[in-house]
Amino acid sequence: MQLTEKVRRIHRKIDEDFDQHLQLIQEYIRQPSISADGTGMKETAEKTRSFIEELGGKAQIVSTRGWPVVYGELFFDMPKTLIIYGMYDVQPVEEEKDMWIVPPFSGEIVDMQPFGKCLVSRGAINTKAPLRAFFNSCKTILEVEGKLPVNLVFVIEGEEELGSIHLPEFVEKHVKELSRANAVFFPLPAQDPKGKVVMFLGVKGIIYLELTCRGGEWGGPTKRAIHSSNAAWVESPVWRLLWALNSMRTLDGKICIEGFYENVSSPTAEEEALIVKLAETFDEETIKQEIEVLRFYRNLHGAELVRQYLCSPTINIDGITAGYTGLGTKTVLPHEAKAKVDIRLVPNMQTDEIIKKLKTHLENQGFSDIKIEIHDCYPWAQVSVEESVVQAMIKTYRLHGYEPEIWPRIGGSAPFYIFNQPPLNLPFVIGGLGHGSRAHSPNEYITVEGLRENEKSIATFLYQYASSEEQT
Amino acid sequence: MQLTEKVRRIHRKIDEDFDQHLQLIQEYIRQPSISADGTGMKETAEKTRSFIEELGGKAQIVSTRGWPVVYGELFFDMPKTLIIYGMYDVQPVEEEKDMWIVPPFSGEIVDMQPFGKCLVSRGAINTKAPLRAFFNSCKTILEVEGKLPVNLVFVIEGEEELGSIHLPEFVEKHVKELSRANAVFFPLPAQDPKGKVVMFLGVKGIIYLELTCRGGEWGGPTKRAIHSSNAAWVESPVWRLLWALNSMRTLDGKICIEGFYENVSSPTAEEEALIVKLAETFDEETIKQEIEVLRFYRNLHGAELVRQYLCSPTINIDGITAGYTGLGTKTVLPHEAKAKVDIRLVPNMQTDEIIKKLKTHLENQGFSDIKIEIHDCYPWAQVSVEESVVQAMIKTYRLHGYEPEIWPRIGGSAPFYIFNQPPLNLPFVIGGLGHGSRAHSPNEYITVEGLRENEKSIATFLYQYASSEEQT
Repeated sequence: MQLTEKVRRIHRKIDEDFDQHLQLIQEYIRQPSISADGTGMKETAEKTRSFIEELGGKAQIVSTRGWPVVYGELFFDMPKTLIIYGMYDVQPVEEEKDMWIVPPFSGEIVDMQPFGKCLVSRGAINTKAPLRAFFNSCKTILEVEGKLPVNLVFVIEGEEELGSIHLPEFVEKHVKELSRANAVFFPLPAQDPKGKVVMFLGVKGIIYLELTCRGGEWGGPTKRAIHSSNAAWVESPVWRLLWALNSMRTLDGKICIEGFYENVSSPTAEEEALIVKLAETFDEETIKQEIEVLRFYRNLHGAELVRQYLCSPTINIDGITAGYTGLGTKTVLPHEAKAKVDIRLVPNMQTDEIIKKLKTHLENQGFSDIKIEIHDCYPWAQVSVEESVVQAMIKTYRLHGYEPEIWPRIGGSAPFYIFNQPPLNLPFVIGGLGHGSRAHSPNEYITVEGLRENEKSIATFLYQYASSEEQT
Repeated sequence: MQLTEKVRRIHRKIDEDFDQHLQLIQEYIRQPSISADGTGMKETAEKTRSFIEELGGKAQIVSTRGWPVVYGELFFDMPKTLIIYGMYDVQPVEEEKDMWIVPPFSGEIVDMQPFGKCLVSRGAINTKAPLRAFFNSCKTILEVEGKLPVNLVFVIEGEEELGSIHLPEFVEKHVKELSRANAVFFPLPAQDPKGKVVMFLGVKGIIYLELTCRGGEWGGPTKRAIHSSNAAWVESPVWRLLWALNSMRTLDGKICIEGFYENVSSPTAEEEALIVKLAETFDEETIKQEIEVLRFYRNLHGAELVRQYLCSPTINIDGITAGYTGLGTKTVLPHEAKAKVDIRLVPNMQTDEIIKKLKTHLENQGFSDIKIEIHDCYPWAQVSVEESVVQAMIKTYRLHGYEPEIWPRIGGSAPFYIFNQPPLNLPFVIGGLGHGSRAHSPNEYITVEGLRENEKSIATFLYQYASSEEQT
């Protein structure tokens, strides 16, 4: 299998114009767009719309109850239509400002060993640089060929970093337009620090909730922390919350909510095959170093470890707080204790089902006074490796000389269900060449060479997908 | 039983000079003395020394590794010698500055309903105003009688609000001087908001410790919080700390540390008699309102409730913290979880014994990686109601028309063991008339009339103690 002459021509043109492409990426990156506090959101939405229009597409900024969605269409009467899902917002930088080696919105190119020249910036990998690189690639195809091999529908939201709160609302209102698409593509460079291409075909669902235990009819101080000498005759909301939490999970990690595992599927034959293959290449030591842990759960290794990671639902305590947590000592019996908890769901668990089971569990254990507040809540999403859009991406990697490591899913969550579940039921793929890292952290970066290869891989992918047999 | 003419004369003189006495109290109060940050500590130690010298005593400022102790002697060749234990430091005000109705060190007199004129100030009740009132009372006795009925030894520390860290060191170095005393008196106005006199004869011991669970050899992230998707294959220090804590105590309050109750004494016959008597006058509803709770532990009432409060050791969680506790959502698997815990000890539990049992418990439960850091740690202290210094105070109250409510001890802790246990083995008493409140809180106050009555009660008490039969 070889790249076609047409695609090679496009790649050469990308090489010729790359300095200019990089400038366009830097320009976009320099425009802050922090959804958390609103900095530059309006300007960035406008800029993003202009990118679609510059390709000759129709675009509009669609209001939601939050930040708007940039919606666009670029049709060439091609048989296949791809939704380009993207985001124009980035994470805040305020807390970490002093830790950046260059100002986070300066768009500067820095030599960073062992990667060489890198664009160091908020949005370098997550995901404004790759988004602009996608537009660069399309621009070149249009310059060389006059048209794209697929029709594009753009859905570029401004609330990804806020949990895509209003995206379902947008999709609901635009089902008709979006239903013309055959698949969804989220451009996100997929190479790890050593250059290995890592693909994932699904995400877990998530229920992020806050549990609050306050003094009340059952006992405990009701208004404020009181002197801890009262612990002899007044109950504690802290002990109570701890007991409620511990009633949900054994020390060894088994979840004790009645019926919690009822809908957990065993890995499918396809998933199992991917897991076994993946276990051969997946580098346990590198991951341990990256997340700075000395051992994995139950000392698992290989396929067993991968299976545990991908196929287990979890209950995690993201944060817990009560009483006095400053320096030194203060003797108080707190009136309130809070825990932030995330529950990750695997196929075929349902969000509603699990919330109901959690509530029933707390009631059965006598903790019906504990308040449950649901923050984020959305289901898992999953595509088959056989989907033509996935196969097109795999072939793209191979044409560029990479054998991807394919994960049936990742442990994290993202709202791909919005496209993947009814009413749209669309397959999706995430990827592209290039390496970047430190999303949500200081000195977020992407390599300059990675951006160049990314643009080329996008072109390859669009032609691969255009020429693929549609799965029925 | 009536006040002697001598004491009445002293009381009349206190009335005559009270305006001037109040000014002296205000002056002392206006000198800040915050041991937490050092504000005015040197000046206040000097001022306190001058009070002893003005009475004709010998005084010195004795260095410790922390704030100095003001030590003084005022001997009249009397058969009895009393240690006046006091403190010249106060709590900080910074955090609560905006909540004061007058500046916290202005020493202003404010009309506060239903109490009438009050001195509103940091140190108003805890305890600079009562300390200066004690000196005022002695001053008057000297003016009227030329001598005091007892010898006094002053131990006035500057670290009470820091847990009296260096007081044991001071006492150890001054055993010879202090051994001349027959008893210890801590001046602290004892009337509740309704005017009832409440006495307590002992305090619980305390072990204040911090438990820290961090990722390590056993699992968990070791350096920083990681993405919570890793919860499927990485253990959590938060769950681990919760399990360790819950292994120590049932939801119902029973402590599960092996041998924890081994040395817990049943109430003595004297304590039991006091509890039964106390249960008749003690006002459950007022206490519930004061601490804003709707019910007590196990819905106990009367003597049973009092017994539970006074005779139960406790493990309380003063504070707990891990991970993300800000607004909204952040999905992290924390690398560290911390809990501040206080254990209250009743007779005859020993601090060393309990620390050892706690450590053994954590080891036996497999939590030997959890770090235990001991902050405060000191034993309970207890005197008998039969002690002559206690009887002198009870008689004082009765002579002033009050029948005290006597508690064998309080639920809180204070380092009276320093005087009460070997090598000194001295009985102690805490008290005096007057009402004040809001120690450690904004708008700490003491009533002006209470200060006047306090000064009179001090004079009565010194003569009562002087004339009492010493218990042998």
